Amino acid sequence: MTPQLEPYFKQVDGLADHFIERLRQAVAIPSVSAEDERRPDVVKMGHFLHEELKKLGVETELRPLGKQPHKEHLDLPPIVLGRYGNDKNKRTILVYGHYDVQPANKEDGWNTEPFELSIDDKGRMFGRGSTDDKGPVLGWLNAIEAHQKAGLDFPVNLLMCFEGMEEHGSEGLDDFIMEEAQKYFKTADAVCISDNYWLGTEKPCLTYGLRGVQYYSLEVSGPGQDLHSGVFGGTAHEPMTDLAKIMSSLVDVDGTIKIKGIAEQVAPVTDEEKGLYKDIAFTMDNLYESLGSKTGIFPDKERTLMGRWRYPSLSLHGIEGAYSAPGAKTVIPAKVIGKFSIRTVPNLDIDEVNKCVEEHVNAEFAKLNSKNTCKVFCQHAGKWWVASPKHWNFTAAAKAVESVFKVKPDLTREGGSIPVTLTFEQATGKNVLLLPMGSSTDAAHSTNEKLDRYNYIEGIKLLGSYLHYVAEEPMNN
Amino acid sequence: MTPQLEPYFKQVDGLADHFIERLRQAVAIPSVSAEDERRPDVVKMGHFLHEELKKLGVETELRPLGKQPHKEHLDLPPIVLGRYGNDKNKRTILVYGHYDVQPANKEDGWNTEPFELSIDDKGRMFGRGSTDDKGPVLGWLNAIEAHQKAGLDFPVNLLMCFEGMEEHGSEGLDDFIMEEAQKYFKTADAVCISDNYWLGTEKPCLTYGLRGVQYYSLEVSGPGQDLHSGVFGGTAHEPMTDLAKIMSSLVDVDGTIKIKGIAEQVAPVTDEEKGLYKDIAFTMDNLYESLGSKTGIFPDKERTLMGRWRYPSLSLHGIEGAYSAPGAKTVIPAKVIGKFSIRTVPNLDIDEVNKCVEEHVNAEFAKLNSKNTCKVFCQHAGKWWVASPKHWNFTAAAKAVESVFKVKPDLTREGGSIPVTLTFEQATGKNVLLLPMGSSTDAAHSTNEKLDRYNYIEGIKLLGSYLHYVAEEPMNN
Repeated sequence: MTPQLEPYFKQVDGLADHFIERLRQAVAIPSVSAEDERRPDVVKMGHFLHEELKKLGVETELRPLGKQPHKEHLDLPPIVLGRYGNDKNKRTILVYGHYDVQPANKEDGWNTEPFELSIDDKGRMFGRGSTDDKGPVLGWLNAIEAHQKAGLDFPVNLLMCFEGMEEHGSEGLDDFIMEEAQKYFKTADAVCISDNYWLGTEKPCLTYGLRGVQYYSLEVSGPGQDLHSGVFGGTAHEPMTDLAKIMSSLVDVDGTIKIKGIAEQVAPVTDEEKGLYKDIAFTMDNLYESLGSKTGIFPDKERTLMGRWRYPSLSLHGIEGAYSAPGAKTVIPAKVIGKFSIRTVPNLDIDEVNKCVEEHVNAEFAKLNSKNTCKVFCQHAGKWWVASPKHWNFTAAAKAVESVFKVKPDLTREGGSIPVTLTFEQATGKNVLLLPMGSSTDAAHSTNEKLDRYNYIEGIKLLGSYLHYVAEEPMNN
Repeated sequence: MTPQLEPYFKQVDGLADHFIERLRQAVAIPSVSAEDERRPDVVKMGHFLHEELKKLGVETELRPLGKQPHKEHLDLPPIVLGRYGNDKNKRTILVYGHYDVQPANKEDGWNTEPFELSIDDKGRMFGRGSTDDKGPVLGWLNAIEAHQKAGLDFPVNLLMCFEGMEEHGSEGLDDFIMEEAQKYFKTADAVCISDNYWLGTEKPCLTYGLRGVQYYSLEVSGPGQDLHSGVFGGTAHEPMTDLAKIMSSLVDVDGTIKIKGIAEQVAPVTDEEKGLYKDIAFTMDNLYESLGSKTGIFPDKERTLMGRWRYPSLSLHGIEGAYSAPGAKTVIPAKVIGKFSIRTVPNLDIDEVNKCVEEHVNAEFAKLNSKNTCKVFCQHAGKWWVASPKHWNFTAAAKAVESVFKVKPDLTREGGSIPVTLTFEQATGKNVLLLPMGSSTDAAHSTNEKLDRYNYIEGIKLLGSYLHYVAEEPMNN
């Protein structure tokens, strides 16, 4: 049965200004989780959400997470939990979002006050957290309110989990999810996360895959302390020379990873997969626009999307311990730590990748015949994630997109990592869907972050519509 | 005629405590030239010297250098000039030193207050500037005073030039020296600089050569702004990848410079030169001690000394624009600037070296087939310097060493650069001698800088003795 969504959509349109006002109030709370002195604002934002949920009749609670590790004077902000409906005849959808934001200062290059929602004549709503992730989080609340005001039955039971530390490592979240998997989250039939972006600006997408990441420190040391290059240059093995050699051996200019054993682990491209890329709403101009240059590796969009989504990549990030300031300093650094990371894809195994990296580095260093000391270690590792886009969770979302935007969504993966996705999948054993609200130009994490009015209001329709289709989709796994 | 130095030496010994007190007063003035807020202390130190010189009857003046370039609110500290004696029948020696010091904070790891002279039971006098360069500068004043108190005729006319910006680029000094070459410095017959160190701890040396330095910035850029490695890794040419390749192509782990055309310019080793190294008071253990490790390139001292003094070297210093903090950041830096420098020796030509570097970098970058942009440029260049150690200025100093230390000095070169040396040589056209007072363990520029009481007091004897022998040496060029 196709849901009758017109009354809901009309209600959302009618409440648009009210929903924007709610976003304005949320953006006005500078809930920057990375700045200790802003912690009270993060907590304030958690309480704001808690109060808004209560007003909507949602059963809600604030769950403390204890002290922040390594900063015992700081309480972690609470997890805001919510339960709306508890009808055994309805499906239960668990949604996740975060109410903290990235740092922002007007002086960094913002055209408007970052913590005041400013709407320009193109309907762009500028403000820190507008798109990441206050807009999407409020989207769920707004969907509930529109149903209430339209007198419509809410189609599912909704479980909500909103955290306040996402922009600062999601401290405490993984343990909490694991702990509540068979308690608060026990009844969830599927999970939906709205914390990513459309691939472009025109066409919605559903995201079913993420790359993992393994981040390495490659340390070369020799002298007991930094040396003067005049006094010691030409007489001592220099750690920077060794490090440059090893870093340059990891990856080629065309992105090919030179570490033996990585490419062999990558899942082969199937014929079915090959056909997926050409229809994705993405052009090389989209790439060039987001790069700010024409320095792409591949001439075509298919290979570019595969490079982003389904092949591993290796990036050199920088060097700790070497001279990094402007100007000139004639130092021979005594200990340098190269930083690089590998984006991983199916079927790369975390331990196997670590082993390949260690073997490569050790072999390359041995070739050098240096008297310095070299070691490499994995700072942190997060696994790749790929869900089945054929699951009812996805087919429901696809129908919802069509009902709102009159277009079939692209099925996309992302090159980056959202570790909580995998945590929810592993903790609940349920299908997880990434259902973005904002577009690729929203500048999350950057200056002048924004959410388009169009994406916000239509996004609220999308979230509600998705829940209706979820209620109707046949069980398929 | 051999000078009769015993009365002078006795007088120096008798005044030792007084001379140490003078050094204590000087160290107590934190004349840190690199820190804007300390500028008044640098000026105060200049005035202290001026007053001390006046008390000794030296004709002295403070010469303003105007505003500091790029910091127009700051006056440069004055040059302290002094003239002691103006007898046409005597030789005139121009001495240079500096009265500013490196930054120092107790918290950096000093065992004592850096601006309080602290003498331990081994006679080590700890304090910022003790050896670099307040001890040597006061050495000249002390030599004058000891002559006066012993009722001895001063053997030469002494011209003094003490600057207050040596540790911060000697701003304004070169122009000043060029300007005064035919004025204040016109009558100088030779130049003596005491601002370097013995090669070890036991045996004095005279220094007749320095390497030059050419410092490069190697810039690779591509994207319009820093990128997220998850989103763009594997799809765009990364400047860090290109930079690592080029940096690793510049030099081998054993110090061999891989830039075509550099080795070809190095003056061949003569048979006479070959014999010089084996007698130098230097051991591989000296190297290992100063390195704080056994990571020397060569097993023998001869090749090590040649690597330091007479062969060029290339050091990679670091990268500007890449991630350099502890921890992890998954950034693809948009523009990275590799810093490296070449220590130069006879007969490397500044322009020719620049040309070789440019050609090498351009060729290596072309090989990469990258869409990024690469450029290299020389930030600053200072020429190598080699003087004749057979000049009377050196033979006088050698005899002075024998008279004080009962040993022939080593004739050494240095791997580092003291640009003012070449400036004085070029401006005056006279022979320049580097006559160190401190030893290799003095930790100039580091924490716990010190000057041994022995080196200070015997050094005062050395400076005075040197002037006596200068008065006696036959003209040889």
